[in-house]
Amino acid sequence: MYQQLGVIGCGLMGGSFALAMKKAGLVRRVVGYSKSPSTTETAKKLGVIDVIAESALLAVSGSDIVLLAVPVAATESTMKAVRHILKADVLFMDVGSTKCDVVEAARRSLGKALPGFVPAHPIAGKESGGVQHAEAELYKGRQVILTPLPETTPGLVQKATDVWSALGAQVLKMSAANHDAAFAAVSHFPHLLAYAFFQSVAAQPAGRDYLSLAGPGFRDFTRIAASEPSVWRDILMANKTEVLAQSRLFRQALDGLEALLKSGDATELEDRIRQISDGRANWQMGAPRR
Amino acid sequence: MYQQLGVIGCGLMGGSFALAMKKAGLVRRVVGYSKSPSTTETAKKLGVIDVIAESALLAVSGSDIVLLAVPVAATESTMKAVRHILKADVLFMDVGSTKCDVVEAARRSLGKALPGFVPAHPIAGKESGGVQHAEAELYKGRQVILTPLPETTPGLVQKATDVWSALGAQVLKMSAANHDAAFAAVSHFPHLLAYAFFQSVAAQPAGRDYLSLAGPGFRDFTRIAASEPSVWRDILMANKTEVLAQSRLFRQALDGLEALLKSGDATELEDRIRQISDGRANWQMGAPRR
Repeated sequence: MYQQLGVIGCGLMGGSFALAMKKAGLVRRVVGYSKSPSTTETAKKLGVIDVIAESALLAVSGSDIVLLAVPVAATESTMKAVRHILKADVLFMDVGSTKCDVVEAARRSLGKALPGFVPAHPIAGKESGGVQHAEAELYKGRQVILTPLPETTPGLVQKATDVWSALGAQVLKMSAANHDAAFAAVSHFPHLLAYAFFQSVAAQPAGRDYLSLAGPGFRDFTRIAASEPSVWRDILMANKTEVLAQSRLFRQALDGLEALLKSGDATELEDRIRQISDGRANWQMGAPRR
Repeated sequence: MYQQLGVIGCGLMGGSFALAMKKAGLVRRVVGYSKSPSTTETAKKLGVIDVIAESALLAVSGSDIVLLAVPVAATESTMKAVRHILKADVLFMDVGSTKCDVVEAARRSLGKALPGFVPAHPIAGKESGGVQHAEAELYKGRQVILTPLPETTPGLVQKATDVWSALGAQVLKMSAANHDAAFAAVSHFPHLLAYAFFQSVAAQPAGRDYLSLAGPGFRDFTRIAASEPSVWRDILMANKTEVLAQSRLFRQALDGLEALLKSGDATELEDRIRQISDGRANWQMGAPRR
């Protein structure tokens, strides 16, 4: 049981964490700060937080667990603003989708509070952001990746594991570099692909007519192209080296399939497609790792 | 009211058309032929067809409406097999996803039966094919594209329009060339993209681990990569010129976004992504055309 959870950034992720912690009976009191006062007011009205903090510093003050859930671009300045009062035994986590940049920001800004920081990436979200969409079940059955630093206090990594597990999540640990390589492949690059694809169709002279003919396959394939621009600008910029590496591998695969199309080798094309199709049909979200 | 519907190819598409015609009270009797006898037996057992035909010719004989719903690769040989008994007033349609190749096959094979042929592409389908998944509602609320030839009897185009409308579909007419360009953009090329993307992830040394971390965005983005290999081999091969043209446009769009990533121009990247994201958020499947 934690005495006080400090939430910095009361949006979908921070708000859902607060609701989940309350529902699980893991925290007595939630203090919340957001840049916009109307957000914290809504959060308080909805019972997501109990007390409005007037600053990030005041959200940390007196808290034995702190969740940083601000846009990636605000991570470093927020860390700098609170590092002075972060005690060594306080569990301090973020929820960012990229981890190398967060770890670098923490190294630059946290100083002697660094060992208390446990970088976290919960693989959860919704189309619609904002505290009004926060829900206690958001993290249930989802994966949460922790990327502790060599300096991170082992006891706090254990505490982080226990907290997310108690919320119903499956906790995995890996290095920040491995995390960013993996998510470039399965999340960040596909967003770039979906953006590029939707743009290429919409920008054609007959694009509007084409779009009016598109069906369910197109709908699902382009769903992630509606993702929040500022969030994805940050993610793509933060992880661009890995994203561009994935693009090179993808282009090789596309070149290979197109070469078969051009050569007219239907048998080999079908074999190649069958291997891919079988692989995708056998894939299951959240299946246990090897 | 038609006296007899002849279905050549009693799979998902042909079977669903038979069920829908019966349910709408538009046909007295359905005669069905499939290459595999077990398919027609199942179709009869399920009440999809009333009479099993031993050949495509026997399915056409005595029918005043005929639906050709065989794999694209079998279109031409089937047309050749039945052209002799196709009468001028019989409504003869296919359901192929590509239309230029079907029109060419019809020109080569149908001879004086050509004016009775109304090429059709119902934008409908399911993950699971086969007559056992056929359903009367498959075409309800979906679009059906007709691509009549200059030679096609206008009265039969009207009949085709009436039939599909009576089944609850929205009927559009366009040239086979326009159809193939449009569907290369919104269906065929995205399948190639999804195949290439899934392959590029799965083939990496850490591919299995990466796949175990993938979430709902990845699931939806790659859903079409599980599509039936033989069907998509035919479609991609048949429409490869348009598919490769779409690929060139897509690569330009991807290059443009990657150039912004490389240059670090976050503002311009966000603007570009916001335009795309707004476009996708405002898109609705089946929205009325301009």
